[in-house]
Amino acid sequence: MENGSKKWAFKGNKALEVADAISIRGVLNVLNDNLKGNDNTKTAIPLGHGDPSVFPCFQTTPIAEDAIVDAVRSAQFNCYSPAIGILPARRAIAEYLSQDLPYQLSPDDVYLTAGCNNSIEIIISVLASPSANILLPRPGYPMYESHAAFNNLEVRHFDLIPEKGWEVDLDAVEALADESTVAMVIVNPGNPCGSVFTYQHLKKIAETARKLGIFVIADEVYDHLTFGSNPFLPMGKFGSIVPVLTLGSISKRWIVPGWRLGWIVTCDPNGILQKSAGIAESIRRYCNISADPPTFIQGAIPQILEKTKDDFFAKIINLCSQAADICYDRLKEIPCITCPYKPEGSMFIMVKLNLSLLEDIDDDMDFCLKLAREESVVVLPGVAVGLKNWLRITFAIEPSALEEGLRRIKTFYNRHMKKQ
Amino acid sequence: MENGSKKWAFKGNKALEVADAISIRGVLNVLNDNLKGNDNTKTAIPLGHGDPSVFPCFQTTPIAEDAIVDAVRSAQFNCYSPAIGILPARRAIAEYLSQDLPYQLSPDDVYLTAGCNNSIEIIISVLASPSANILLPRPGYPMYESHAAFNNLEVRHFDLIPEKGWEVDLDAVEALADESTVAMVIVNPGNPCGSVFTYQHLKKIAETARKLGIFVIADEVYDHLTFGSNPFLPMGKFGSIVPVLTLGSISKRWIVPGWRLGWIVTCDPNGILQKSAGIAESIRRYCNISADPPTFIQGAIPQILEKTKDDFFAKIINLCSQAADICYDRLKEIPCITCPYKPEGSMFIMVKLNLSLLEDIDDDMDFCLKLAREESVVVLPGVAVGLKNWLRITFAIEPSALEEGLRRIKTFYNRHMKKQ
Repeated sequence: MENGSKKWAFKGNKALEVADAISIRGVLNVLNDNLKGNDNTKTAIPLGHGDPSVFPCFQTTPIAEDAIVDAVRSAQFNCYSPAIGILPARRAIAEYLSQDLPYQLSPDDVYLTAGCNNSIEIIISVLASPSANILLPRPGYPMYESHAAFNNLEVRHFDLIPEKGWEVDLDAVEALADESTVAMVIVNPGNPCGSVFTYQHLKKIAETARKLGIFVIADEVYDHLTFGSNPFLPMGKFGSIVPVLTLGSISKRWIVPGWRLGWIVTCDPNGILQKSAGIAESIRRYCNISADPPTFIQGAIPQILEKTKDDFFAKIINLCSQAADICYDRLKEIPCITCPYKPEGSMFIMVKLNLSLLEDIDDDMDFCLKLAREESVVVLPGVAVGLKNWLRITFAIEPSALEEGLRRIKTFYNRHMKKQ
Repeated sequence: MENGSKKWAFKGNKALEVADAISIRGVLNVLNDNLKGNDNTKTAIPLGHGDPSVFPCFQTTPIAEDAIVDAVRSAQFNCYSPAIGILPARRAIAEYLSQDLPYQLSPDDVYLTAGCNNSIEIIISVLASPSANILLPRPGYPMYESHAAFNNLEVRHFDLIPEKGWEVDLDAVEALADESTVAMVIVNPGNPCGSVFTYQHLKKIAETARKLGIFVIADEVYDHLTFGSNPFLPMGKFGSIVPVLTLGSISKRWIVPGWRLGWIVTCDPNGILQKSAGIAESIRRYCNISADPPTFIQGAIPQILEKTKDDFFAKIINLCSQAADICYDRLKEIPCITCPYKPEGSMFIMVKLNLSLLEDIDDDMDFCLKLAREESVVVLPGVAVGLKNWLRITFAIEPSALEEGLRRIKTFYNRHMKKQ
C-alpha cells in the first residue's frame, strides 16, 4: 500500500450471490463451463434453456425481420421512447391480446418492457416491501425468486401437482396466504412443466385469489404454444373476478428471445390496479427509471403482430408437438427417469430422477454436471426450478439433435446404472 | 365488497414516488403534460432532453443502420445472449476504448448493458448496502439519485464549481468521504454543465480517490462530443492510479439514444475491481438477473464501431459547436439568465435564473411550467439536476429550431419581467 492511501473501501455485494445462485443463467453457466472442460469431441446439445432460435427449422418469420428493417430504415425510431413505450406499439399489443378476451384492452393497460425477465423485475420491484409476501409456484421460473431475494420481498411457495397435470394446489394457496400477501404468480403454459391449465382451473385460481384479496400475475410468455387437449386461455379472461397482471413477450411465439421486447398488461376491467390500488402508477414510475426496449423494435411491433401469418405459428407448434412426442417416448425408455405428465405446451418437460437406480450420482446437479462433461448434453437440474432431483428438459430443438441428445442421456444412464 | 372476499391487500410502492420524483423523465412528463394544456398553436421546441435524433441534420450514419440490418438479416442473433454480452461486441468495445488509453483493455473488462441508464442501475444496485455511501456531483445526472433512493444507498453531494469551469470541488470530496464511502461519480463531458475536464483535473480526481480508498465511476456517455479548448480524455487514463469504472454508450456519439446499447468497463490495469474487491464479480451476477441489450444490436456493434467514418463525427461536433455558440450568445441577451460558463462539450448549458428580475415566477419549476404553457418551449428546471433556480438547456437541436426556442424564451422574459 502506498503511503497516505487508505485501504480500498469497496467490495462486492453479497445479496447478489443469493439472487444469482438461484438464476437459471447462473446454473447454466456452471454447466457450460463443465462442457468446455470435457475431452470428448461431441457437438454440445442444448436441452437446458428455452431458445430454439439457433436451429434453422425454428427461424423466425421474414415478416418479423422485415418489420425491424423497415423501422430502422425509417429513421423515425432512433429517439428515446416514452418510459412505458410508444403508443402505436402499446395499441397493437392491446388489440392483439383483446382478441382472446371478453373485453377490450386500452393502450393504457400496456407497459412495454425489455423482455419478460424485465417484466418480472419491474413487478417484483413494485411489490417489494419489508412487510409484503408473494406466492410463487414450485416448481417455477426462478427469476421471480432472484428478484424477490435481491429486493427483500418474502416468498412463499405453493406446489404444482404432477399427478393433476401440474395444477396449482389451491388448498396450499389458501393456507399460505395471510394479511400481508399481495399476489400469486402462475406460469401458463407452464415453465418448467409444459402444462396447460383448463378453463375450470383458471377460474378456480381467480376465485381463490379474489377470496384472499390478492391479484394474479399471469406469466404467459409461452402464450399460444400449446399442442395438447387444452387450448391456451389467457388468465385475463377472469379479470372481472380478480385483477390480473399479464406478462408476455414476442420471444417465444416468434422465436426471437434475443430481441428483448416484452410487456406488462393490466387485465382488469374493474380498474382496481389502475384506480384504487396504485399498482399501475407504481409500474409507470418504475418504468421511468428502468431499462426500455429499443425504440425501433417498439416501432416494428404493429407490423409484427398484424402481419404474421398463421402458417408460421402452425409450423412452430407442429415442430414443438413432434419434439414433445419424441422426448416423452424416448425418456420413458430410460429407467432412471419418470415422466408424470406429457407436455401439452411451452418447450419443456419436467421429469423425476430415480437416484436409487444410479451409482456414483449424488443428486440432480451432479447428474447434470457429469452429463455435460461426458456427453456434452446440457439439461437443467430441477433444483434450479425448485424441485431437487428432478430435471427440466427442453424439447424445442431441431428433432435430429433432440434424438441424439436423448440417445446420449440413455448411454449415460447405461454407464452409470447401479449394477445388481 | 362481495361476501367472503377480503379487502384488496395490495398497494403501490411509496419508495418509487421518491425515486421517480427525482427523475428527469418524471419532471419532463409534467412539463409535457403542461404543453398539451396550452391553447397556443406553436410547434413544441424540446430543449429539455439530450436527444437531437428527431432532427434530420442529426440523423445517424447509414453505416450504423446498415450494421443493424445486416445483423437482423443474418438470423445469427435471434438467440439469447450471454448475460454480459456476446464476445465480438465486447471485443470491439475493448478495442475502441483502448485507442485512447495507455494500456489495452480485454473483452473481459467489458459488460454490455441496455443503455447507459441501465449501466447506472447496475452499478448502483451492486454498490447498494445499508452501510455504504457514494459521492455524487451537484449538479448531476439524477438517475444516480433515483436508483440510490430505490436501493437505499446513501448519497452525499460534492459541488461542481461554475466559476472554475464546473470542476469538482475536491476539498469537498475529501471532507465528505468517510470509512463507508465506496465510490465517487464524475460525468465528463459534463451533463448538465457542458464542461470538459482537463488532464490535470482528471489526474487530481484520481489522486484524491486513491487517497480516500474509493474508486471512480466515470460517466462518459458524451465521450468525444467536445468542441472547446479541452479535448475529451477518458478517466481510464488514470486507471493505474485508481480503479475506474467507465460507463458509456453509442447513444450520443451516434445520435441513437433509442437503440439502448451501453457498457460498463473496468479500466483498472491493476485488476483491483476484478480480483480483490469483488465488484466485477457482482456486476456479472447482477447482469444474470437484469435486462440485456437485444442480441442483434450487440451483433451490429463491431461493424458500427469499426466502420463509422470520422466525417460523420466531425459533422455532429460541428453542429453541436455552432448550436452552443448560438445558445450562449442569445441567452446572454436575456437579462434574467446568467451563463457562468460557455459549454465545451456534451449537449447542455447550465444557466442561472435571476428571479428578482421576474414577477409572478416563483422558482425554476414555475418558470419552466409557464414557459411550456405559454411558449411551447420545454426546458429542464435546475432542481431536477440538483440546482434550484438554475436551468439546463439543450442546445443540440436543429439550429433554426434552437433560434426560435431562444427567441420565445426572450419573449417570455419580456412578458414576465418586473416592471420598474
